[in-house]
Amino acid sequence: MLKREDRSEILECLHQNSLSKLRQCLRDLHAVDIADLLPTLPLPQRIKIMRMVDKDKASDILFKLDKEEVLLLLEGLGPKRTAEILGQMFTDDAADFLGELPEEQKDILLSLMEAADAEDIRELLNYDVDTAGGLMATEYVDVKQDITVAEAINILRKTAPDAETVYYVYVTNDREQLVGVISLRELIIADPSALIEDIMRTKVFSVNVRTDQEEVAKLMSKYDFLAVPVVNDNMQLLGIVTFDDVMDVMEEEATEDMMRLVANIEPEGQEIESSFWIRAGKRLPWLIGLLFGGLLAGNVIQNFSETLEHMTALAFFITALAGGPGNAASQSLTVVVRGLATGEVNRNKILAVVWKETQVGILIGIVCGLLLSVMAYVWQQSLILGLVVGLSLAISIVIATILGSLVPVIMNRIGVDPALASGPFIATLMDITSMVIYFGLATLLII
Amino acid sequence: MLKREDRSEILECLHQNSLSKLRQCLRDLHAVDIADLLPTLPLPQRIKIMRMVDKDKASDILFKLDKEEVLLLLEGLGPKRTAEILGQMFTDDAADFLGELPEEQKDILLSLMEAADAEDIRELLNYDVDTAGGLMATEYVDVKQDITVAEAINILRKTAPDAETVYYVYVTNDREQLVGVISLRELIIADPSALIEDIMRTKVFSVNVRTDQEEVAKLMSKYDFLAVPVVNDNMQLLGIVTFDDVMDVMEEEATEDMMRLVANIEPEGQEIESSFWIRAGKRLPWLIGLLFGGLLAGNVIQNFSETLEHMTALAFFITALAGGPGNAASQSLTVVVRGLATGEVNRNKILAVVWKETQVGILIGIVCGLLLSVMAYVWQQSLILGLVVGLSLAISIVIATILGSLVPVIMNRIGVDPALASGPFIATLMDITSMVIYFGLATLLII
Repeated sequence: MLKREDRSEILECLHQNSLSKLRQCLRDLHAVDIADLLPTLPLPQRIKIMRMVDKDKASDILFKLDKEEVLLLLEGLGPKRTAEILGQMFTDDAADFLGELPEEQKDILLSLMEAADAEDIRELLNYDVDTAGGLMATEYVDVKQDITVAEAINILRKTAPDAETVYYVYVTNDREQLVGVISLRELIIADPSALIEDIMRTKVFSVNVRTDQEEVAKLMSKYDFLAVPVVNDNMQLLGIVTFDDVMDVMEEEATEDMMRLVANIEPEGQEIESSFWIRAGKRLPWLIGLLFGGLLAGNVIQNFSETLEHMTALAFFITALAGGPGNAASQSLTVVVRGLATGEVNRNKILAVVWKETQVGILIGIVCGLLLSVMAYVWQQSLILGLVVGLSLAISIVIATILGSLVPVIMNRIGVDPALASGPFIATLMDITSMVIYFGLATLLII
Repeated sequence: MLKREDRSEILECLHQNSLSKLRQCLRDLHAVDIADLLPTLPLPQRIKIMRMVDKDKASDILFKLDKEEVLLLLEGLGPKRTAEILGQMFTDDAADFLGELPEEQKDILLSLMEAADAEDIRELLNYDVDTAGGLMATEYVDVKQDITVAEAINILRKTAPDAETVYYVYVTNDREQLVGVISLRELIIADPSALIEDIMRTKVFSVNVRTDQEEVAKLMSKYDFLAVPVVNDNMQLLGIVTFDDVMDVMEEEATEDMMRLVANIEPEGQEIESSFWIRAGKRLPWLIGLLFGGLLAGNVIQNFSETLEHMTALAFFITALAGGPGNAASQSLTVVVRGLATGEVNRNKILAVVWKETQVGILIGIVCGLLLSVMAYVWQQSLILGLVVGLSLAISIVIATILGSLVPVIMNRIGVDPALASGPFIATLMDITSMVIYFGLATLLII
């Protein structure tokens, strides 16, 4: 049993007309649940709710809403309340959020916020969104190395309410350089009179502010870090990236891989909100490219049109022979690309994996080839046609698995993202290859 | 700059022959880095290292190694040292680990471990691995509601070294039922003399021990929880699931979705270690099914063999007409399935999304159809062929986007995992549909 209020109960609460009852029940609801149901309410009701919840919860709600929804609300709330709400967000979230607004609106809001926050956010807005700088928040806890554990806990007690994570306390020297780290767990169990420099760990994992977000996510997931400090080239502490940011990045990266692999589309244009012109524009180039690939396969057939006219039945097997190897190639491709992305396939194993896929390909090829050959014989009552169809399928499938596993490995070696080798691309390549093998064999054996 | 020692430096350390130097450098290395490079060393060296590192680090290393590798090491280390190392793991990790061993070996190891740990692990082994029970650890911190904050911090100080997470302290009543929660952050900033029951939050999110792991992961990612308590039907606290377990689940689920969507394969058989018989066995049923689909499309062509003999050039466009709509369908499918998985497409938006995909399909269909029609005319110098080819492609692509977006939505509505609607399946279905449209139109317009 999930102890979440169910939908109708929450809706009932949001529809309260009595102000005091509404305020009470908003206090009890989780921001995420309010954000889930807010878009189903009429706009005036939404605005009323966003005015009534405390600033902290309002910022959590806003953060979980879709961009379109937020823009609507902002107009209704006016810049003053919006700036108040933004001031409650962690700087990384506020920056993400402001980064999506038009320049003019952004400036109005920043001018209404506290100067210190506004400056932090302006700085964060300068970093590339796909880097550690784009992910990090500036609300961390740092102490100097020459204080005691008890003093550090006191500092923590004061800064905790504003910090994004209190689970690591960072230690910096006089030049603001990161020199150590202590987890809250270690701080709690340490002797209160001990000096920080005596108990801190001096081997600190940190990432440079320009490190790619995917690398940050991999590092944190590999080592199970809750947070990782971000430094500049001079090792000065600039901010922290926390695990919740990384969960979002992991989801984003898996989505990107999937979009590329299955569908050859750049995920940026595929958010549910993006206009249908953008969506179509992102998909068309590849679809058209693949169409040309299909025509190339057709061209192969035309080159063998004499063979085809000699035996029209050859045409009946074009779809099976184009589909089978393409599917086999996609399977190998997916296994290898995903293995590379999760790190399950590492440098030491790459050749073993390709070899294993090749063995699988041989087995699959023989089974599918035999089967299609029997089916072709039964269907068309021609032994030679059965032989040609079966043999072509078997050979094509073996080539397909080798190609499907080798291409991403090679791309990975030369430093290209292997997820760019998409299923449809390899499948279309296999269409052409299978047609050459099929009609080539047919010409050889039939005529 | 990632402050990780680079590969060669770590290898150099692991190759140390001086025992004292080896011990020193092992102390400085992160367990994850040792686990990364261990498999590249000769077996005796690996065993030496696993004997030399402290038990705690040894358990971290073991946890990160592949199953095959672990089995090798265990033989070398012997059951006594192995049980020692397992005793250092959190119960959830130890249970995962033991669950993979043969019954006999499992019993030997459990009998060598501390009785309390062994019992906890035996209990965890009873839960289905895909549920909250299979993910949870039993090392949590719980306190009673009638003690003070200072007393709670004292308890925390004692139990922290053994607990998997100290970031939430759970409050239970006399019947071990979960009644509240306090985060370590709240505990640190609270007045030390306050009573726990006065500051604890009484609205606690918890999951039932039988909740599916995917649901647990979604909940934790949605609310950004570091840990979530697991209870039985009687609301008694049994354990906790922590964010690192959930990161692994998210990766696993994304992999499953991808395997199904792109390649129609059950991911269970696709781990790099699984034998090639298992791999082939998991892929063959679908490949063969899709082959039949290809033959059905071929059957459509045979039914129109008169038309085909009348104009052999129709065969040249089979691959383009089978590929294009299939690719368009895969694109729509991926966008919708992924949107459903990440929650970006929710109940309120489902119809809007299908409608948007349909609009995209119409635009894409018109563009691709026009293009192919011009290419066909230029290539084959036949106006009527151009018309047939273009019109068939346009109609097929529109149908493909509707089918690709509607099928996962319907599956989601009736409670079936939409990722089971795979790209290759929809593409093969589109092969048949496009052939009917293509040869149907050709018969209508040409003969």
